[in-house]
Amino acid sequence: MKFLHTADWHIGRTINGFSLLEEQKYAFEQIKEIAKNENVDALIIAGDLYDRSIPSVEAVTTFNEMLTDLVINEKIPVYAISGNHDGAKRLNFGRDFFADSNFYLSTNIEEAMKPIETEDTQYFLLPFIDPSDARVYYKNVVGEDDELVKSYTKISDAVMRIVSDIRDNFVEGKKHVLVTHFAVSKKGEESDDELKQLMLSETSSTVGGLATLTHDIFKDFDYVALGHIHTHEASPSESVVYSGSPVIFNSKEAKLSTQKGIYIVDDTDGKINKKFINLKVEKPFYVLNEDFETLTSKDFYKKYSGQNAWYSIQLKDYDRKAMEGINIRARLEDIYGTDIVELSFEERYQDIKNQSQNKPTSVGQTAPEVTINNFYEEMTGQKPSDFQEKVIEDILIDIRKER
Amino acid sequence: MKFLHTADWHIGRTINGFSLLEEQKYAFEQIKEIAKNENVDALIIAGDLYDRSIPSVEAVTTFNEMLTDLVINEKIPVYAISGNHDGAKRLNFGRDFFADSNFYLSTNIEEAMKPIETEDTQYFLLPFIDPSDARVYYKNVVGEDDELVKSYTKISDAVMRIVSDIRDNFVEGKKHVLVTHFAVSKKGEESDDELKQLMLSETSSTVGGLATLTHDIFKDFDYVALGHIHTHEASPSESVVYSGSPVIFNSKEAKLSTQKGIYIVDDTDGKINKKFINLKVEKPFYVLNEDFETLTSKDFYKKYSGQNAWYSIQLKDYDRKAMEGINIRARLEDIYGTDIVELSFEERYQDIKNQSQNKPTSVGQTAPEVTINNFYEEMTGQKPSDFQEKVIEDILIDIRKER
Repeated sequence: MKFLHTADWHIGRTINGFSLLEEQKYAFEQIKEIAKNENVDALIIAGDLYDRSIPSVEAVTTFNEMLTDLVINEKIPVYAISGNHDGAKRLNFGRDFFADSNFYLSTNIEEAMKPIETEDTQYFLLPFIDPSDARVYYKNVVGEDDELVKSYTKISDAVMRIVSDIRDNFVEGKKHVLVTHFAVSKKGEESDDELKQLMLSETSSTVGGLATLTHDIFKDFDYVALGHIHTHEASPSESVVYSGSPVIFNSKEAKLSTQKGIYIVDDTDGKINKKFINLKVEKPFYVLNEDFETLTSKDFYKKYSGQNAWYSIQLKDYDRKAMEGINIRARLEDIYGTDIVELSFEERYQDIKNQSQNKPTSVGQTAPEVTINNFYEEMTGQKPSDFQEKVIEDILIDIRKER
Repeated sequence: MKFLHTADWHIGRTINGFSLLEEQKYAFEQIKEIAKNENVDALIIAGDLYDRSIPSVEAVTTFNEMLTDLVINEKIPVYAISGNHDGAKRLNFGRDFFADSNFYLSTNIEEAMKPIETEDTQYFLLPFIDPSDARVYYKNVVGEDDELVKSYTKISDAVMRIVSDIRDNFVEGKKHVLVTHFAVSKKGEESDDELKQLMLSETSSTVGGLATLTHDIFKDFDYVALGHIHTHEASPSESVVYSGSPVIFNSKEAKLSTQKGIYIVDDTDGKINKKFINLKVEKPFYVLNEDFETLTSKDFYKKYSGQNAWYSIQLKDYDRKAMEGINIRARLEDIYGTDIVELSFEERYQDIKNQSQNKPTSVGQTAPEVTINNFYEEMTGQKPSDFQEKVIEDILIDIRKER
């Protein structure tokens, strides 16, 4: 058993309209070379293949080229699942054809029950799902009665049940690998604040479970190849592992400055060994938080300017009045070029009120269900009932699926 | 050589929001049974697989089930091309995987040059293209110089050049079948009014050539399996043939009341034989053009009501004042049910002006380039120049591709 574990390719991702396709292709070429050099049995992509459920034509074309190159030209089997960013049903088109050529794609629970069998290993592919997907599966496919099905209201209940069914298909003497895509907590606690922060930076939604799985659910697997969180440092245990994304997707990830890469996993000597292999970056991502004077002084900018890079600039100590009439973006573009993907301002003089504790969070940084609940509370003076919360969750699931 | 020729499935089509998926599945089951009973070498779908370039999730799921059923379960090879309704690049995802399982899909000119070879036949799959696609192909792929490439401004020039290149790949002693998707004229004239009417009823656009191909372009092929026009009666010659769509898509097609079906084509005795096999309709499509009194009298409606049918109703001799306060749709639904997909009114008293010769055509019935040209002429008093017309055409091509 030897495989490459990667995840969260998010093909088609943009930052404020700037395409990351070139970065994604650059990372892909490295991943392909590693897979060839390491002579792996398979390449695992643990969800979020695309960035959106209806990807752009460019994203579809690029991902098609990558898969064709890996599976058809290089004969490297690919095992992939859909993540929360993927449109599972759209992605599913052609899967029975793909399997004939060693591209295994799982987009629903039914497929998760049928492992890919190699000589020494069983690979189970469980895509990102909602509790409602589990209810539909156990009712319509398995034919369970309503009362039991109704109990799958939390993602942890649903996944525990699924994992238990997967275990029933374990063949003894083989290694058991799970490929899946959820927020799995390091500490065994539901409220892992650090993880929640990482999560919010990439999903802006708690639908389907924000850090509600704990790694002990997966204790019977030899290795769990996770996707969802974009840094390998968030891995909850030695054998329940995030590979992280191959590319930096935003300034928050750039600030964390964790190394992007992939895992090579094998079982030499009967035990699981994993090594993290770094991916190079063609175009660095600089996050600069300085005042205007510093940003425009040569001593400072000579380190950053004149290269092929992305820039996220937060202008410190910004004095709106003093800067009136100055086109700040144009001045900065003269120095840093046009790839300034973010430009924000930290004002010198701020209204005291705005600095108070009750300063509202920007809606964009809050999960939609939190925004709706806050609005409800503000309007009615009471919290939504459990039933109302359920309705809100169902609607948000539908909306997410449509997108 | 023996194949089934069908086209214009338009999976996901709706009439004013009413889904035709059930009709499409009913027709599909018949087509599959015919292909099995006739023991064909292949099933040809000559374009417009989907109704839209970004089909709905239901359409994607349904078409995936159909293809999997045909190719993987029933082992019937499928040869298909993209039509003007399909998003060629999106549809192209996975094509190299599909080909391994005998589902051959062509979405560009490059693929049209590589025939599918069987023991006795070469099948060339030329999808619907624009002149601009030909210019890109001959410049970027073939590497022709600009001057020659520029000459492909009309679709007939482009297709003639492509057909000439295809002929260079002919293997002697084999039959040569072309699968393509254009408006091809019966009479060998560019201005075939009857054909234009048929065309407009289904595309509402002349972009990419409205009846600009004549069937003699294709004289070197033994059989040309066409898609685009929805009735087999529009076939331009004995060997250049429209199969028509398997399902009635609107009231115009219902009024023509031509039989829907598919062709079985073989070459017993060395010559090409084709037979048209009718497809049954599960749910009839009635077009009723009567006054309100007739529509609501039992003697009339007993022939139509009380069955599973679609209704397109044009209310004749409609007296707006006399009918005030009557909910006409509700009254008609009481009799005919809720599947009234169209309801329009022919007023008894009309303003004389509106009946004059200059009565404007409804925009919906006019090709966008005609609407734009008319508007330009109305505003400026002169016709757009050739250059302006070219710009308009290019923009409309881009818009259509995006859709």
